[in-house]
Amino acid sequence: MFAVVDRWSYSRAGVDLGKHRNLHQLALSIFNELNKELGFTVKDVGGYTSTLSYSGAQLALHVDGVGTKTIVLKSLDSLWVAGWDCVAMNVNDVACGGVKPLAIVDYIAMPSADEAALRSVVEGAAKAARYANVAVLGGETAILPDLVSGIDVVCTVVGFRESSFTNLANVGDIAIGVESWGIHSNGYTLVRKILESNRLSYSDRIDGVDLREELAKPTAIYSKIVLEAIERSLITGAAHITGGAYTKIRRILRPTVNIILEVPKPPRIFEILQRLGNVSTDEMYRVFNMGIGLVLTAQPSSVDELASIVERHGFKVYKLGKVVEGAGKIIVKTYGGDVVEL
Amino acid sequence: MFAVVDRWSYSRAGVDLGKHRNLHQLALSIFNELNKELGFTVKDVGGYTSTLSYSGAQLALHVDGVGTKTIVLKSLDSLWVAGWDCVAMNVNDVACGGVKPLAIVDYIAMPSADEAALRSVVEGAAKAARYANVAVLGGETAILPDLVSGIDVVCTVVGFRESSFTNLANVGDIAIGVESWGIHSNGYTLVRKILESNRLSYSDRIDGVDLREELAKPTAIYSKIVLEAIERSLITGAAHITGGAYTKIRRILRPTVNIILEVPKPPRIFEILQRLGNVSTDEMYRVFNMGIGLVLTAQPSSVDELASIVERHGFKVYKLGKVVEGAGKIIVKTYGGDVVEL
Repeated sequence: MFAVVDRWSYSRAGVDLGKHRNLHQLALSIFNELNKELGFTVKDVGGYTSTLSYSGAQLALHVDGVGTKTIVLKSLDSLWVAGWDCVAMNVNDVACGGVKPLAIVDYIAMPSADEAALRSVVEGAAKAARYANVAVLGGETAILPDLVSGIDVVCTVVGFRESSFTNLANVGDIAIGVESWGIHSNGYTLVRKILESNRLSYSDRIDGVDLREELAKPTAIYSKIVLEAIERSLITGAAHITGGAYTKIRRILRPTVNIILEVPKPPRIFEILQRLGNVSTDEMYRVFNMGIGLVLTAQPSSVDELASIVERHGFKVYKLGKVVEGAGKIIVKTYGGDVVEL
Repeated sequence: MFAVVDRWSYSRAGVDLGKHRNLHQLALSIFNELNKELGFTVKDVGGYTSTLSYSGAQLALHVDGVGTKTIVLKSLDSLWVAGWDCVAMNVNDVACGGVKPLAIVDYIAMPSADEAALRSVVEGAAKAARYANVAVLGGETAILPDLVSGIDVVCTVVGFRESSFTNLANVGDIAIGVESWGIHSNGYTLVRKILESNRLSYSDRIDGVDLREELAKPTAIYSKIVLEAIERSLITGAAHITGGAYTKIRRILRPTVNIILEVPKPPRIFEILQRLGNVSTDEMYRVFNMGIGLVLTAQPSSVDELASIVERHGFKVYKLGKVVEGAGKIIVKTYGGDVVEL
């Protein structure tokens, strides 16, 4: 007898990235029209964030939230990670647009005034802000029993773009990967559905992997690496692997190039999730970072110096592949021999 | 036979402003310690917002959300007001700290990808941004079915403080009130509970007042008035009447002064809410703006010019009272003859 194994995907778990992208584009088009009408000079700097010209400076403002990872973190009594992640995701995103993050505010929505939860989140945010060297200019705590059932953690970062970093890879560039610290903050809706459908709890151990430990890992902060590499003119592109995972690399590709990546064996948690959820390999690289949280592109002559910066910051570095002539495609050759085209 | 009329208050409706204040202070104290440790110069500018010294400029970052008003707005098919209000509350808040708002990002959390709802919110935000003359640098739309049951709308504003406005009233100053456009964005949890307990719908008509119209009124934008008054050195203090209502005036009071306000008859919606909910007069002035959305203090010689600025922006102006020697108290003499001390 064969067990019937459901095939899970992000859209089946309730998240439709295509729809999400459409909503984002809709909002952007309305706001862009407004900015033009008001005479503001707003520039997209690599798809992550926009800058506004102001008094000769390029000011960037960027917002992102932790999403449903907070549900898991609350259950694992690790809410400090939500605060950390919120800062991490924002500083990583703007750094990939060549923006030095300067200050953060947070927004925490809760169903009741839970002081212990708030303290954890805020302490985590402060910890990450210390690491990333950004000020925290307060924030807002909203008690919304009729609107939220869990804790929603959102941060906004302001910073300035001080370089002319174009964030576009060139033919002949080498692609470098920087290790992630685990799942980071994206794909948790799928993770939760896969575990639920297998009747596993967030604190179970499976195939020697401690889910509690894996699910409560914070998001790595890459902003210092990216900014140092930009300052030394060592990179041409930087892609933070967040929502949409490896599809995010498209942001650093001109329509006339492809990027070919030979990715390492992913950490075991991703193999376990793929097996438990019977998720396609293609889908895995669209949803999860698979062990690589940041992809950088650099001229071959810059690779050694770049690698040493990454390692000095305490991260493993992978030579992943190269940028070739093409049509804006991301080609991922997996350790298992599959080829995923995104 | 007498009908038993429940006495409603904000805390009975589920919102404890004291607890909320404590959470806010807890977060601030953790962040202030961090900022000091990192060597950032952060300054509280009147309780609404903090500024960070950066390259000779005073940068402010401020976040606030619309709260449960979105529940009512969705039911009344007026979600554009949520976008408008989100911008309005933020620009009003920072302007009262002497900060000229420059750019906004929004964060919208929804249980499903509702394009029509997103479009309404975004169009409302754009409309308010146009009125307030701020850029919108994008934002984030989060689809969080397991975390939010309604639409949560949050904005963050960045701006610069260009004046040395102290935002502290002096003995002898006159207090000026600027009319509100209705309930604005605070107190909606209490409004909803009062209406529910009276089995009224959001679109009912009561005593000649159209609830639909009153509940879907946007928040007035005062930022241009406040900034113009500061630029012309016409005011000593500015208090935006938001969460906590008239208690917000404490932010412009030194511990050695009192402010005595003789407030006008409130608009009928407030009288109806007070009667339906059997709310104490004291509580009404702690939760609702009661027809006055902004309180300004000015030297007697500046009052005429100030009043003409307010009227030029299309708002009714009220001479409310004066600042006297005292102990940091807000004394409100109501139209009905009650005296509320906050």
